[in-house]
Amino acid sequence: MRPMRLALAQINPTVGDLNGNTSLVLEYMERARQCGADVVAFPEMCLTGYPPEDLLFKPRFIARNRDAMERVVAQSQDLTIIVGFVDSDSDHTYNAAAIAHHGKLAGIYRKAYLPNYGVFDEERYFNTGTENPVFFLNGIGIGINICEDIWYPVGPGLAQSMGGAEIIIVINASPFNAGKLRFREQLVCTRAADYEAFVAYLNTVGGQDELVFDGGSLLSDPAGNLIARAGQFQEELLMVDIDADDVFQVSLHDSSSRQERSRGASLPEVTRVHLGGEPFTQPKPPLIPEMAPPLAHTAEVYRALIMGTGDYVRKNGFHKVVIGLSGGIDSSLVATIATDALGRDSVIGVTMPSRYTSEASQSDAQALAQNLGIEVIQVPIEEPFSGFLSALEGPFSGTQPGVAEENLQSRSRANILLSLSNKFGWLVLTTGNKSELATGYATLAGDLSGGFAVIRDVPKTLAFELARYRNQSAGEDIIPESVLTKPPSAELRPDQKDSDSLPPYEVLDPILKAYVEEDKSLAEIVAMGYDEATVNQVMRMVDRNEYKRRQGPVGIKITPRAFGRDRRMPIVNLYRDS
Amino acid sequence: MRPMRLALAQINPTVGDLNGNTSLVLEYMERARQCGADVVAFPEMCLTGYPPEDLLFKPRFIARNRDAMERVVAQSQDLTIIVGFVDSDSDHTYNAAAIAHHGKLAGIYRKAYLPNYGVFDEERYFNTGTENPVFFLNGIGIGINICEDIWYPVGPGLAQSMGGAEIIIVINASPFNAGKLRFREQLVCTRAADYEAFVAYLNTVGGQDELVFDGGSLLSDPAGNLIARAGQFQEELLMVDIDADDVFQVSLHDSSSRQERSRGASLPEVTRVHLGGEPFTQPKPPLIPEMAPPLAHTAEVYRALIMGTGDYVRKNGFHKVVIGLSGGIDSSLVATIATDALGRDSVIGVTMPSRYTSEASQSDAQALAQNLGIEVIQVPIEEPFSGFLSALEGPFSGTQPGVAEENLQSRSRANILLSLSNKFGWLVLTTGNKSELATGYATLAGDLSGGFAVIRDVPKTLAFELARYRNQSAGEDIIPESVLTKPPSAELRPDQKDSDSLPPYEVLDPILKAYVEEDKSLAEIVAMGYDEATVNQVMRMVDRNEYKRRQGPVGIKITPRAFGRDRRMPIVNLYRDS
Repeated sequence: MRPMRLALAQINPTVGDLNGNTSLVLEYMERARQCGADVVAFPEMCLTGYPPEDLLFKPRFIARNRDAMERVVAQSQDLTIIVGFVDSDSDHTYNAAAIAHHGKLAGIYRKAYLPNYGVFDEERYFNTGTENPVFFLNGIGIGINICEDIWYPVGPGLAQSMGGAEIIIVINASPFNAGKLRFREQLVCTRAADYEAFVAYLNTVGGQDELVFDGGSLLSDPAGNLIARAGQFQEELLMVDIDADDVFQVSLHDSSSRQERSRGASLPEVTRVHLGGEPFTQPKPPLIPEMAPPLAHTAEVYRALIMGTGDYVRKNGFHKVVIGLSGGIDSSLVATIATDALGRDSVIGVTMPSRYTSEASQSDAQALAQNLGIEVIQVPIEEPFSGFLSALEGPFSGTQPGVAEENLQSRSRANILLSLSNKFGWLVLTTGNKSELATGYATLAGDLSGGFAVIRDVPKTLAFELARYRNQSAGEDIIPESVLTKPPSAELRPDQKDSDSLPPYEVLDPILKAYVEEDKSLAEIVAMGYDEATVNQVMRMVDRNEYKRRQGPVGIKITPRAFGRDRRMPIVNLYRDS
Repeated sequence: MRPMRLALAQINPTVGDLNGNTSLVLEYMERARQCGADVVAFPEMCLTGYPPEDLLFKPRFIARNRDAMERVVAQSQDLTIIVGFVDSDSDHTYNAAAIAHHGKLAGIYRKAYLPNYGVFDEERYFNTGTENPVFFLNGIGIGINICEDIWYPVGPGLAQSMGGAEIIIVINASPFNAGKLRFREQLVCTRAADYEAFVAYLNTVGGQDELVFDGGSLLSDPAGNLIARAGQFQEELLMVDIDADDVFQVSLHDSSSRQERSRGASLPEVTRVHLGGEPFTQPKPPLIPEMAPPLAHTAEVYRALIMGTGDYVRKNGFHKVVIGLSGGIDSSLVATIATDALGRDSVIGVTMPSRYTSEASQSDAQALAQNLGIEVIQVPIEEPFSGFLSALEGPFSGTQPGVAEENLQSRSRANILLSLSNKFGWLVLTTGNKSELATGYATLAGDLSGGFAVIRDVPKTLAFELARYRNQSAGEDIIPESVLTKPPSAELRPDQKDSDSLPPYEVLDPILKAYVEEDKSLAEIVAMGYDEATVNQVMRMVDRNEYKRRQGPVGIKITPRAFGRDRRMPIVNLYRDS
């Protein structure tokens, strides 16, 4: 028996907070020590937070991140630590992990595969690592990978495992989208079986602008069995025991795969670094590894929205948020998420009725606020709205009322919310969903404007599901049932319905998913069973409204492709996919 | 004598407009033919427009760009053409140039160096080319480079020139910033001397979202002398004659450099492609190459702003723009640029006086509009403003008037401009400058909001210079002198001055340049001679207002680092450079 106790510190660092992140790492090192860990690992770039983006162009930022690494290393007595930081030499930087032992830096691993797709821009900043070190601690071989590395079949983990690594520790800052955890689990278990090594997958947790890191750290044994899973959306120290002798045992049972690998690819050389120590032969008092149950789709999205909202608000130093409550599904859902994230005392609802606001909407908004226990302010928009109509009487004379008059109301409401923000320091949460943002069914400098767009990546149909899920979890209708059943309306003119301007959401949302998230062509979407004129209309709406999407606040990515850094479309764009 | 007549088609394509761009290429091919060209070159990715960004993830877009390339190739009778397009094989795409001859595709060059810094994301889309073809036409060796390639000292041009290329044709989509043309000239002439080859540098021209391509195409002889320069900010066909014998002659005079190069680096192999034809020995009737005078700094920026504005408006299909005229320098400058770009009939000014608007401001705005000959509409904001104050009386009771009340005015004005946009289809040009955007001295959903931000990358001090330049060019005060001399004020409260909230612009702007464009630290900026408290205040303002900058419309990049895709900073960011 060759046991090792590993602690995976699934922590929530903050971008740029070098001191705070260092303290957090030191705190978890102490906890790991108290739990009897031999090795404690910290996430990818946890000392800087991830992604620091163009902060990486500041030489002093790099220098201070190195100082932070050195402070952490100096505290590694009685422990082996692995910690993500930004390494640098004379004129390059690297996404790297330091491994330290007995207070001394023992080695550095530099990420070999740099993601430069989706939300990632790592080629903008980093050089690729070329070394494949394997670190031997108490006779057990340890390889380190960083995030993207593990996604390549012939990545550094293969060379490291061939070179004696019995456990590959992968440190990550892997952003959430719904369903990704299962994908990671498949990958981690497959790689472990490929490598015939333990694979420990440590993910960071927390919200950073549009990204949420969901944690859900994992451990697979060398046969590809998942043996531990941390919770999602929470900080924790996942403690696991491994027995490196299991690697040898699996190899004996399945030597063919190892032979196959050695023929398959010419692998890079590894360097061997001996950290010292004799193999432990006596295990510590046994530990039952955590196996947190995976969350269902809706639950997982809801938790992501809570974490993304809470972290954006807190990390930016706000104490309260303000939300315009229309009595509709979107604002009801956002208010509920905000209350779950921040507590009822941190959420203020504002109702801003107009001449077109129905009684039902007003009572639904009031009922919601009462259910949540949040403060409500009422500011009717009639006075500013009629002020605008009067001021514009000359220029508008002879024209028919239309979108201009409707948008005046939406912008009056934004003005009120933003004025309350200016006056009292509350952050404005906007309530637009992905279906609206995609089609441009939102008002520039109106409902589009604010501080944070909680559900901007949530399609309307999913907003309904989330609301129902939340009510079911509560065992009561936090969001009034009438909000879930009445036809969606912007209430900017008499008897207006969303369906006057948009296809029904059950039709719209799948078309949007196919076009926006999957780049399907008109013909391909029509082949899915949708009406050609409708598909064409939807595609044109998406194309035409890129300018508008650029001007909303950031919000939480929950799908594989959110609007924003994930989908970079030109505004001047005459391409029409026919 | 081995003459060749080269046409550099400095054209203005539109992103996504595959048919329109193809027609434009065909039109310039015909013009080149009529001018007796042997070879005509077109810019980098001119068939798709540049940059097409995530349109490159659409398989049909790639296919249709290839169709466009084939249409162009088929029309290359009696000409050799070089045209930028997106090449693809089974699962990769390449930023590429097709070379065609007598109606047939003769070869493809794939860009070897992909920029992934600043505004560029080419690693997101393309694979790197590895082949170094040299094409022999009438016995003259031609190498093709694409943009970034030429910036590398041991780039493909070196291998190509060693392998027999006597002219390197570099096709570009190189975005403008002030002063870049001189930088390019130095580079092109240095490379030509290094290679002992002609270097023809063809740039695209036109505006695309925040980018302006300035043209200014160049030709250097093999001794490093600039022998032709096209105008900036205009489409044109730059015609030049070269004599390939000059290459041999330069080599005879300076064989040392060629020997040195052959020792310096192990160069990749070239492939030789013979297009056929016998060397011409008789030159055509002589051609005086154009040598457009380079524009001075202010003139060049002004022209960039005109082109960027005009193209954004026209390429997006707008016919008129609307601008709020305050009587201040920013809105006066923007209205003047818009009028120069679009003509007086396409520009509407709106004055929106409040209780705080001075007589002087009103008369300055009127005088400006009169000088420009544009229509002016007056919409006082008193009614909506007092409507808001009345509606907010409850929530605001017991508070002192402050930023909230000031911003209500800015947002009322935005609402009026955007309503006019909704009603009449006019594009709203915003008037905020870089100094304001940097420090957050702008109102979210107020003056920040609109369709296009003409001077968002223009520091306030440069705005004054541009206004004076324009007046001097006109020989009269288009922008009234009083606009240039009165102290800047937002006029949102009695006797307000910008200097109440900000350091004087002559102090602010150099600090902003050092921090935003050059990533200098606090200590470094203080060492430049600025007061530490002031520098610290400015840096904090920049850091704190990233969220606001995300919500303004795009505008024209004129500095080496504009806010936007050029400077990607996190919003949640606790780093403070002390």
